[in-house]
Amino acid sequence: MEQLRIGIIGIGGMGTHHANYLFANEVPGAKLAAVCDVSPDRLEYAKATFGEDVKRFATPDALFEANAVDAVMIATPHYDHPPLVMEALKRGLHALSEKPAGVYTRQVREMNEAAARSDRVFGIMFNQRTLPIHQKFKELVESGELGAIQRTNWIITTWFRSQSYYDSGGWRATWRGEGGGVLLNQCPHNLDLWQWIAGMPVKVRAFCSFGKYHDIEVEDDVTAYVEYANGATGVFVTTTGDAPGSNRLEVTGERGKIVMEDGKLTFWRTRQNVAEFCRTYKGGFGSPESWKCDIPVAGGGEQHKGITKNWVDAIRKGTPLMAPGAEGINSLTLSNAMLLSAWTDSTVDLPIDEDLFHAELQKRIDTSRFQKKSEGKTLQTKGTFNA
Amino acid sequence: MEQLRIGIIGIGGMGTHHANYLFANEVPGAKLAAVCDVSPDRLEYAKATFGEDVKRFATPDALFEANAVDAVMIATPHYDHPPLVMEALKRGLHALSEKPAGVYTRQVREMNEAAARSDRVFGIMFNQRTLPIHQKFKELVESGELGAIQRTNWIITTWFRSQSYYDSGGWRATWRGEGGGVLLNQCPHNLDLWQWIAGMPVKVRAFCSFGKYHDIEVEDDVTAYVEYANGATGVFVTTTGDAPGSNRLEVTGERGKIVMEDGKLTFWRTRQNVAEFCRTYKGGFGSPESWKCDIPVAGGGEQHKGITKNWVDAIRKGTPLMAPGAEGINSLTLSNAMLLSAWTDSTVDLPIDEDLFHAELQKRIDTSRFQKKSEGKTLQTKGTFNA
Repeated sequence: MEQLRIGIIGIGGMGTHHANYLFANEVPGAKLAAVCDVSPDRLEYAKATFGEDVKRFATPDALFEANAVDAVMIATPHYDHPPLVMEALKRGLHALSEKPAGVYTRQVREMNEAAARSDRVFGIMFNQRTLPIHQKFKELVESGELGAIQRTNWIITTWFRSQSYYDSGGWRATWRGEGGGVLLNQCPHNLDLWQWIAGMPVKVRAFCSFGKYHDIEVEDDVTAYVEYANGATGVFVTTTGDAPGSNRLEVTGERGKIVMEDGKLTFWRTRQNVAEFCRTYKGGFGSPESWKCDIPVAGGGEQHKGITKNWVDAIRKGTPLMAPGAEGINSLTLSNAMLLSAWTDSTVDLPIDEDLFHAELQKRIDTSRFQKKSEGKTLQTKGTFNA
Repeated sequence: MEQLRIGIIGIGGMGTHHANYLFANEVPGAKLAAVCDVSPDRLEYAKATFGEDVKRFATPDALFEANAVDAVMIATPHYDHPPLVMEALKRGLHALSEKPAGVYTRQVREMNEAAARSDRVFGIMFNQRTLPIHQKFKELVESGELGAIQRTNWIITTWFRSQSYYDSGGWRATWRGEGGGVLLNQCPHNLDLWQWIAGMPVKVRAFCSFGKYHDIEVEDDVTAYVEYANGATGVFVTTTGDAPGSNRLEVTGERGKIVMEDGKLTFWRTRQNVAEFCRTYKGGFGSPESWKCDIPVAGGGEQHKGITKNWVDAIRKGTPLMAPGAEGINSLTLSNAMLLSAWTDSTVDLPIDEDLFHAELQKRIDTSRFQKKSEGKTLQTKGTFNA
């Protein structure tokens, strides 16, 4: 098979990152064949950086019509992910979408249904799934080492953003342009990993503040409580207003607890099943013996490039996807449920009422009085990926 | 002044602990003069342990009538704390109540009103206030080093209890006997420290499970979300079902975050005020510089004996109380609010509706079908204090 010709739709911050490693031939079997952006400045940048061999298009339609690529990576603002994925699949192109899968689950469900009917390979850029520490955490839970889950708790407040960040993109942090704040932009990875490791909850009760630390209209502070089907509970806390913030995921089960913090994975493992100890111990005060175990974690993971390589291998060799596109709906369901819970001041059952969410979102778009203070500016994303 | 003659009402687990250090003359200026317990077995134990010089009474009334003491320590089941404190004050005795201050705030408010009218010294056994790590945390917040608080988060799940613990006391873990579970028995210290360090919230939304991990009717699993008057938010998670559990308090402010865990206090301090950085920084991505500071903490604290010594000094020398009795209503307000929120499945504003809480509690007492499987048994509390 010849080299897979990849087109990138949207070469802002993330798209440019993808373009760079493809152009540098760091993804075996694939090459950067085309880029597409609505901004003439970005196309000028692409011409200067990649030369004439990489074709340039001002609209996705022009790219699709040109038959210049076999596959597309989509790095546009969030709303456009589902329609562009669907159009690509319809044109017989493989697709790799940036996160989030979209802004509202109805749109994403339609995309997933289209993908299920297609024979093309559809992936999503959950680059944090490539990190060995996340894979190991998932493996410890799935293998049963932790026993039945009792509790999850993720404090993920290392997403500090300054006002200048929000002012840098015309689409950022508006209901119309982005459709959400920290849940849609920064947290899709964490929400994905949370459900990837511990499963999806069945109920969500969230408390969101909108424009609490920034002059924006979307949420920049969230505390969510969830319940799982087995009765376990969970907490998810995030913000772009804390510095330096914390990134600490704790999952408790019948065999102790696993904590991920500071790039380390620690398993406090009980010698005996906790529920069994509770039932059979006769001494009044007393706890099961537990051992603090440092869990070995190998290497750093390939992040975005790793997901792109895996997607290319899936196309060329049938390698299983690390991040199947259809799974993007899970983290979006969580963020939609959190917003819907805050908007309606009530507990939300999963799956959510898609139409109600969309209507509530539309209401906020229609009544938005938010005037962006600046036009779009492409930020350097280097060093901003949260591991 | 002669030695203060102290009587202890209730010599179960905690009362016996107090009696032992008083009998060993470890509290300067005070001596164990009398004990009182409804259980003949406990009085036999007292006779065998303390001899004839320590008077024994089968009822509080008999103790009060005998004029044998100047002050009483109250270590009975929770419901009796307020009436016994009020009776002691009425009789001109100083009083030191075990935690919680009571079971419902209406009763405790009446006690506080009586104490305010009295010239006797009324303290409460918040022994964890004696720990230097807690005092230092409070001092860092109060002095303004942390700046305005943005977030608090306490995961306090190190309170594992086995079923045999609950089966050991006839009054334990029933609505009628104890009036609550982990919030009333294990958590008063944490709830007190939480508000002592970070202040009282104004809203509480809690999710409680009742008899989730044990054959009991009261709560053994709680997740609470709170809001403070300045807009800060907080989370409090506790249970007696996790092992080994976590004890991690994080408070975030405009100058970084302070974390207490594993007996250590760490302050990630930003060089610049976070809100100011957010407003003035022009670089898009970027965070304020922060320094990880290990905060020195001296010594281990005197725990219960320290509170008793301080109360005796307050009586004898006018030393300010570390834990004034009137402050017991704060942690009780928090636990009452959490239960009320869970019972009514709604957000509760503080101060709570005292009458509604009491009516809801009474409903549970009236409809309790819980049959305790065993009679009272006095447990050794040694080594069970959570630092």
